[in-house]
Amino acid sequence: MILVVKSGGEAALPEWREHFAAFAPGLECRWWDDPALDPASVDFALVWDPEPGRLARMPRLRAIFGSGAGVDLIAADPDLPRHVPLVRCVPPEATQRMAEFVAWAVLSLNRDARRMAIAQARRAWDYFEAPFAAAEQTVGIMGLGAMGRRAAEVLRAIGVPVIGWSRTRKALAGVECFAGPDELTAFLARSQVLVCLLPATPETTGIIAAPLLARLPRGAGLVQAGRGAHQVLPDILAALDSGQLSGAVLDVFEPEPLPPDSPAWAHPRVIVTPHVGSLPSRRERARYVADCIARLGRGERLPNLYDPERGY
Amino acid sequence: MILVVKSGGEAALPEWREHFAAFAPGLECRWWDDPALDPASVDFALVWDPEPGRLARMPRLRAIFGSGAGVDLIAADPDLPRHVPLVRCVPPEATQRMAEFVAWAVLSLNRDARRMAIAQARRAWDYFEAPFAAAEQTVGIMGLGAMGRRAAEVLRAIGVPVIGWSRTRKALAGVECFAGPDELTAFLARSQVLVCLLPATPETTGIIAAPLLARLPRGAGLVQAGRGAHQVLPDILAALDSGQLSGAVLDVFEPEPLPPDSPAWAHPRVIVTPHVGSLPSRRERARYVADCIARLGRGERLPNLYDPERGY
Ligand SMILES: NC(=O)c1ccc[n+]([C@@H]2O[C@H](COP(=O)([O-])OP(=O)(O)OC[C@H]3O[C@@H](n4cnc5c(N)ncnc54)[C@H](OP(=O)(O)O)[C@@H]3O)[C@@H](O)[C@H]2O)c1
Ligand SMILES: NC(=O)c1ccc[n+]([C@@H]2O[C@H](COP(=O)([O-])OP(=O)(O)OC[C@H]3O[C@@H](n4cnc5c(N)ncnc54)[C@H](OP(=O)(O)O)[C@@H]3O)[C@@H](O)[C@H]2O)c1
Repeated sequence: MILVVKSGGEAALPEWREHFAAFAPGLECRWWDDPALDPASVDFALVWDPEPGRLARMPRLRAIFGSGAGVDLIAADPDLPRHVPLVRCVPPEATQRMAEFVAWAVLSLNRDARRMAIAQARRAWDYFEAPFAAAEQTVGIMGLGAMGRRAAEVLRAIGVPVIGWSRTRKALAGVECFAGPDELTAFLARSQVLVCLLPATPETTGIIAAPLLARLPRGAGLVQAGRGAHQVLPDILAALDSGQLSGAVLDVFEPEPLPPDSPAWAHPRVIVTPHVGSLPSRRERARYVADCIARLGRGERLPNLYDPERGY
Repeated sequence: MILVVKSGGEAALPEWREHFAAFAPGLECRWWDDPALDPASVDFALVWDPEPGRLARMPRLRAIFGSGAGVDLIAADPDLPRHVPLVRCVPPEATQRMAEFVAWAVLSLNRDARRMAIAQARRAWDYFEAPFAAAEQTVGIMGLGAMGRRAAEVLRAIGVPVIGWSRTRKALAGVECFAGPDELTAFLARSQVLVCLLPATPETTGIIAAPLLARLPRGAGLVQAGRGAHQVLPDILAALDSGQLSGAVLDVFEPEPLPPDSPAWAHPRVIVTPHVGSLPSRRERARYVADCIARLGRGERLPNLYDPERGY
């Protein structure tokens, strides 16, 4: 069986091979652009951003594994073979890491870590007091999927009040759950820190823009760890400048890498992170993919399947 | 009854007055350097760093309230009236805020937030992967008092393995507890991130120095939120340069403010924060002091008393 890999660049192939040798000994790992590879021989693909049309030329493909939880760059391929299951990569390590990132980001906003970093660069002892403990500010999480649920759990455990919003209503212990467009305004009005963990779909594109930001409590914080397509960056910066937002942690952008001339870099209330929200190790991703391949072999259902109808 | 205040500067007096008016209506709040104040009329003092000898000149003093959890600057007064109870200020908000700070610092080390801040200043998309989830690294907490216990709870809740060390052995759910000098080496050998929440005493002065750092696992992280007197800063910087430490978050220094020429400011593996680990609001501190005064009135025992024998 052959697995073709396009994730982390060709330099990452030896590491992928090492992990797959441990978790799926029968599997042969080949690089995506290997000239000696016959597309007709490929059984599985593990990819982040495949060139459109390439997967369609692999007639034997039995499953496509995204190398991250979001598979929007794969689903964007107009020739994507829709009959082949597309599996989002969500090992437990990925949700834990995202939850840790969200906790870090929420605490960074609470403490104004950006102000502290700027002061450190100036060698200035800039003592100031955070007006609230993080546990006194309600965090609203948009998107209560694998990522949002674990983030909610971890924030609750720290003592932070959490509310959530999703397409269909969820039931989560200790988390007041809102659902659908009709309840978005009520959800936003309560979100003193807004965390975006939505997938990129036509419905969510551009959602973080002036009209949404205006419905948050004045001085709210923003943690954006979904996809760059969700946000209208100039609207976020304008809300920061007007005081409607007090701070933002932005992990995702469009395009990525964020260009050097973006005003986000130098903004005194923005923390820029380079799409590191949730980075499960290659080991854990290989374990997950190997486990899915074994399930397929036993004719079992795969977890975290992309649903073309819903678009995520 | 008269409460004299030296905390937050004279500018903070109106705020203290407002809160005490709510929580202890009979109490008159006066500024420490008020020339019209007769020291013989003072019943209570709320202070951070009183000039030595001043408290001894208040014969009617019934209790001294530290305005923080650490009262080392008060206890350092050779003329401190030892018969007067000295109360450390540890409202629940203070332990929660410290636990949030420690969680932020541990997550900042795990994600290398310092590297991300440096990259942001350079407008550089410096993508890199954290080798471990925070939940895969054992945090060792030195000092399992009010602060250390809540920090342990919060880290455990995030999913982080925690061990602890104190003078007398503690029993904390899910936390392996070490005690006394004999068990320090075993504790350090297991601490992939070391968190210091000790009080400043003769025994703990200079504890964070080369010999201790050498006993940590190679590449350990350090969070120092105790007191500047605990650390030998050049030893910490040397351990960072040699790779024995991978990163440090330093919140306390000697002296404070940290002088502009300190090498800590520009070190690429040090996050400097200006003694902000735990800053309960004046409201919560006033509530706590008012509650203690009420207890005294009822002849009840005071919480968090400084013990001159132990030195903390
Ligand atoms: N920054 C990073 O490093 C990073 C890493 C991984 C993932 N991500 C992003 O995080 C996203 C979420 O990942 P996941 O694994 O949690 O996805 P998921 O399990 O598919 O969950 C998506 C959540 O969003 C909700 N949702 C989708 N469309 C919506 C709409 N129009 N209105 C309201 N709610 C909507 C879903 O509602 P239902 O529950 O009703 O379906 C669900 O709760 C990914 O798609 C990716 O974009 C970012
Ligand atoms: N950075 C900040 O903003 C900030 C804010 C507040 C406090 N602090 C610092 O945090 C310290 C701790 O506060 P706290 O309220 O948690 O104090 P605490 O309740 O008195 O606890 C002190 C802890 O340290 C342990 N300890 C003392 N001497 C020791 C020794 N020689 N060897 C081993 N363990 C020793 C004690 O052991 P036992 O349990 O056996 O007594 C206890 O567990 C304060 O003293 C202050 O220096 C910093």
